[in-house]
Amino acid sequence: MTATIHTLRPRPEPSMAALMALTGQGLTAVNHVIIDRMQSPVALIPELAGHLIAGGGKRLRPMLTLGCAALLDYQGTRHHRLAASVEFIHTATLLHDDVVDASGLRRGQATANRLWGNPASILVGDFLFSRAFELMVEDGSLKVLKILSSASAIIAEGEVAQLTAQRDVETSEDRYLEIISAKTAALFAAACQIAAVVAERDAQAEEALAAYGRNLGIAFQLVDDAIDYVSDAKTMGKDAGDDFRDGKITLPVILAYARGTAETREFWRLAMTGRANGDTELERAGQLLRETAAVADTMARARHYGARAIDALAGFPGGPARAALTETVEFAIHRAY
Amino acid sequence: MTATIHTLRPRPEPSMAALMALTGQGLTAVNHVIIDRMQSPVALIPELAGHLIAGGGKRLRPMLTLGCAALLDYQGTRHHRLAASVEFIHTATLLHDDVVDASGLRRGQATANRLWGNPASILVGDFLFSRAFELMVEDGSLKVLKILSSASAIIAEGEVAQLTAQRDVETSEDRYLEIISAKTAALFAAACQIAAVVAERDAQAEEALAAYGRNLGIAFQLVDDAIDYVSDAKTMGKDAGDDFRDGKITLPVILAYARGTAETREFWRLAMTGRANGDTELERAGQLLRETAAVADTMARARHYGARAIDALAGFPGGPARAALTETVEFAIHRAY
Repeated sequence: MTATIHTLRPRPEPSMAALMALTGQGLTAVNHVIIDRMQSPVALIPELAGHLIAGGGKRLRPMLTLGCAALLDYQGTRHHRLAASVEFIHTATLLHDDVVDASGLRRGQATANRLWGNPASILVGDFLFSRAFELMVEDGSLKVLKILSSASAIIAEGEVAQLTAQRDVETSEDRYLEIISAKTAALFAAACQIAAVVAERDAQAEEALAAYGRNLGIAFQLVDDAIDYVSDAKTMGKDAGDDFRDGKITLPVILAYARGTAETREFWRLAMTGRANGDTELERAGQLLRETAAVADTMARARHYGARAIDALAGFPGGPARAALTETVEFAIHRAY
Repeated sequence: MTATIHTLRPRPEPSMAALMALTGQGLTAVNHVIIDRMQSPVALIPELAGHLIAGGGKRLRPMLTLGCAALLDYQGTRHHRLAASVEFIHTATLLHDDVVDASGLRRGQATANRLWGNPASILVGDFLFSRAFELMVEDGSLKVLKILSSASAIIAEGEVAQLTAQRDVETSEDRYLEIISAKTAALFAAACQIAAVVAERDAQAEEALAAYGRNLGIAFQLVDDAIDYVSDAKTMGKDAGDDFRDGKITLPVILAYARGTAETREFWRLAMTGRANGDTELERAGQLLRETAAVADTMARARHYGARAIDALAGFPGGPARAALTETVEFAIHRAY
């Protein structure tokens, strides 16, 4: 008899690996649809769209559609086209966002608007958005069309709401949650819910997957908000403090402001309106965030939504799909920062 | 017996009056849908959308849907919601166009982007576009969804194509016709075609109405192009020569350039790229357009498409609806200029 020696290894960090393994094959099919359907005789369209679509995107939303379909043991291929549609909506939103925010960098690369100008980014975004609906129409489910057209309207509504709350330090936590629920979480929810539609499950399954996606989306966004005050360029593809320098109101700032004194509130007001937001102020911001536990509590909020996402899966059978979707939540929360 | 004296009156100028009378009641219903569905808890959305939607728009596309439905003697109300959807797509396009062209004036009023900024115009455009699809989904016809999602993709494609042809005097007449077929005529065609869908007519009727709309749309655009070189601010809500000053390539310029000498071609090249486009040059442009008969021939082309639009109606029964749709074509061609 040979003794097997088990080496004690630390539990690995949660990662996207399980979801990527689960959805790898499907994602190849989705990528084919994406590449095929972003073509156009107008050469600028695939050129510009390809820059963003090929440029290091994680395909997180399509992977969620595929992962949820796997959870329901769906055996067809309808979800490939629909996952591509979701990615097109997401890409259209990013193109327009970068114009709205006048961003020059995304995922460490020059943005499309910087390379091709705002007009091209706006119009190619419109094209991809229309293509997304063409893909849904080809699939032919009015239920999917309803879910995704409604999500699109909610996203745009959330973007306008964020625009009107811009640089306003008085934004409340509730209002901020409403904004990110609309801007970010609505498409996560829709991406998951449509898997239940193609698998022909009941309204309860649809609602459970939508809840999973919605809560995961909020958790992702809140952790992004926290990371922006503690990361370095290597982990995020952007520098810590970008949100601060852009005067972006996020939950850490909202909590620090709410818990602040008259003096520190004035500091945040000046910083968020761009009147005093240099390196010295960024350092002071970090100090205030620590003193008020604002980043730590943003993470606590994120864990709350993460827990709700995981609980939303309780009614589905265990196995590799559920494990992968659960680990995706853990990854969202525990990303190195 | 009393003798009746008939006074000889000149035939009245063609106008939109017949189409407006025919569709007046329906248009009130469409306007209710429009006002109702542009609402949002985010106040900026109805405020900005209302500025453009209430601001003197002719509702030409919804009227065409209603007029074509009347031609088919359709008695239902589905077309009200769909006509509103078409108007939302059109409005979204205008909002984005004004950002893309950096326009400050539309129909003699300040543009939304001038009043509320580019970001708000982009995002409210996205919202209206999503709402358009929500309205179609509520109607529930996959055929209508296919027609309008395809038209939307074609519009965006045409806009990008126009962007890449910007200020390029070498643009050919064929290419220009392709661009305006996509940018302008596709939505006219779709607005007419969907009337045949709700009235449950066959593919031939659908195609005939689409042809009517497409040819009418091209005629409208070509006459607009001509008017820009001969109108005054009162008739157009914009000054003559706006296209010239903006370096917009339109058919009069394409014809004058194609028929020009090396010297006059150089003149157009300098003018369209904005290097020499003052009042003196505008006057010279007018002279060259007359010498080459470029405006007159643009009008001849417009009449050709107008004739095709009228002929497309040949298979439908005569009566007030067909007369109104015919007069709309005549109005498009003969608008005072």
